[in-house]
Amino acid sequence: MKNEFGAENVLLAEGEKSVLIVDQTKLPNVVEYLELKTLRQMYDAIFELKVRGAPAIGICAAYCYYCLAKAKEDQPMEQFEKDLREEKEYLNSSRPTAVNLSWALNRMERTFLSNREKNVPEVVEILKQEAKKIQQEDIEMCRKISEYGLSLLKDGDGVLTHCNAGPLATSKYGTALGPLFLGKEKGMNFHVFADETRPLLQGARLTSYELQKDGIDVTLICDNMASIVMKNGWVQACFVGCDRVAANGDTANKIGTSGVAILAKHYGIPFYVLGPTSTIDLSCKNGDEIVIEQRNPEEIKSKFYREPMAPADVKCYNPAFDVTDHSLISAIVTEHGICRAPYEKSLAVLLQDGEKFVG
Amino acid sequence: MKNEFGAENVLLAEGEKSVLIVDQTKLPNVVEYLELKTLRQMYDAIFELKVRGAPAIGICAAYCYYCLAKAKEDQPMEQFEKDLREEKEYLNSSRPTAVNLSWALNRMERTFLSNREKNVPEVVEILKQEAKKIQQEDIEMCRKISEYGLSLLKDGDGVLTHCNAGPLATSKYGTALGPLFLGKEKGMNFHVFADETRPLLQGARLTSYELQKDGIDVTLICDNMASIVMKNGWVQACFVGCDRVAANGDTANKIGTSGVAILAKHYGIPFYVLGPTSTIDLSCKNGDEIVIEQRNPEEIKSKFYREPMAPADVKCYNPAFDVTDHSLISAIVTEHGICRAPYEKSLAVLLQDGEKFVG
Repeated sequence: MKNEFGAENVLLAEGEKSVLIVDQTKLPNVVEYLELKTLRQMYDAIFELKVRGAPAIGICAAYCYYCLAKAKEDQPMEQFEKDLREEKEYLNSSRPTAVNLSWALNRMERTFLSNREKNVPEVVEILKQEAKKIQQEDIEMCRKISEYGLSLLKDGDGVLTHCNAGPLATSKYGTALGPLFLGKEKGMNFHVFADETRPLLQGARLTSYELQKDGIDVTLICDNMASIVMKNGWVQACFVGCDRVAANGDTANKIGTSGVAILAKHYGIPFYVLGPTSTIDLSCKNGDEIVIEQRNPEEIKSKFYREPMAPADVKCYNPAFDVTDHSLISAIVTEHGICRAPYEKSLAVLLQDGEKFVG
Repeated sequence: MKNEFGAENVLLAEGEKSVLIVDQTKLPNVVEYLELKTLRQMYDAIFELKVRGAPAIGICAAYCYYCLAKAKEDQPMEQFEKDLREEKEYLNSSRPTAVNLSWALNRMERTFLSNREKNVPEVVEILKQEAKKIQQEDIEMCRKISEYGLSLLKDGDGVLTHCNAGPLATSKYGTALGPLFLGKEKGMNFHVFADETRPLLQGARLTSYELQKDGIDVTLICDNMASIVMKNGWVQACFVGCDRVAANGDTANKIGTSGVAILAKHYGIPFYVLGPTSTIDLSCKNGDEIVIEQRNPEEIKSKFYREPMAPADVKCYNPAFDVTDHSLISAIVTEHGICRAPYEKSLAVLLQDGEKFVG
């Protein structure tokens, strides 16, 4: 199933009143679409990682915002506005770390408010177009990130990646995986090492699935094997996505990313963060200001397993993200160019000058 | 169930003709003893990690060697010697990396050969005593390592450990976990972070189980969370065991250990290797000479899970161990003292002078 933009993971359902997502928790064993009709279904889909990946969450949230508006298009404007604002706040609370969720919801709300003088059905139509625009822009964004990222690789390189920042996490190509898909189209070959990414195994379930489906050479490893793979000389670059980038370049991404960056530095391997400028949050001075989501201990102790793999009442620490210090990052690759240290300066210039920026 | 030495994990069965082990693959859900009567059962128990931990493997192998001898004590000496030599070689091939397996089997064989002038039943009795001596020495060794290790900690310290080097992996106390158990006896409190240790989850299944059972404060984390836990300032020392230490201090231990050591160096946290001198292999110049066991990809893709968590045919790399460079190791703690760099010198002196060594 693909929509008008060629996206497969987040779509408007026929009739354009509900959202369809590939349920990423069911992959790689089953490809199953889930229909999101109610606010609660939308919240749960994001909270339970049925849709995940910072850009994909943003796109999904935008479509959800539109569908929530559509459901109440016969209401008077005041009630419509009040209800939509409450629903937006609730949806926005589903996951705290990725900036794209609030970025997309705020953009939808701004679009609504700047068209508040129109009648409700007109506003709803405008919101639909805005959500579609967010997805279309995401596809173009991925394409550009992929091109910039590809310029950092040589044919035959080994690339290590953590978690999943491929098509499932975006709309097409992906961010961290984008250069690999684009390179493949151009006839290049890479050897990818995918960290399985405990506890939710996005690397095993999604990254290795996406790469293998496209015929890209991929080897799945446990997270703790990254060191030996790098020591073996098999990795020429690390490519990871990002959930929030602070003004100084400190980057929140899937738990374990900072460890990969430290290993890469130790072994002298460049470490690249790839993501859209919508992930850059200049209001956040540095990584200390990024809220890290803590998740259920059962994800570590029992989820996925036939029987529990730890004592029932043992304490767990289960942060969903960690922050990679900017000093460990060789470059941040965006749709507007490649930023290097000092990031305070290069990120600010990038956001100001947009397309004109030359990385 | 405990034997005369207070050991619970490896014992001679009643009648002293077979070996009893706690099946470590069934923990923490079931505490079940497995009786090893045949050579094949013994090989499989070691190969399948039903008994694991370098010292415990050595003790188990010594008891197995004795039981194999006992089973043929009515044979003429020549046949006895030939059969026992073949069985020893087969048992020795069950796991290649840990030196204790061959160390224990060679010691048993030397004991046999130096008593070859006696009759077979006399030799068998001597072998039983030698196997028991190996276990008794292991308990004393653990106690001394625990004392030396404890001298490196302060009350209230946070300690991160990888895999399992506790009582289950030895006979009592353990090596890396020994100082924590001994400290607990002395009324000290530590905060332990146990890496779950993929793919076989020894940290989740065994370390957190052993520590919690003894009332020691333990928090289970995924391997990729070690970086954030260190960054949070919660770790004052890393304690790990070892499977083989080369003459220059390079140390083979459970896969992922080298990554922990690199993180510890990055965050300025001391990284200690704890193990008996029987783990030091001076015939091995450095880590490049240590053979690394490669294991079944299904351990990564499907073992423990209700359903496969990766595409069925995706390539995996699954080394059981990695080598931590000596430059990353703050000290190697043995029953004869604490060695520091340069390890070529300190390890050689340690093995030469034994008890007289002052660490």
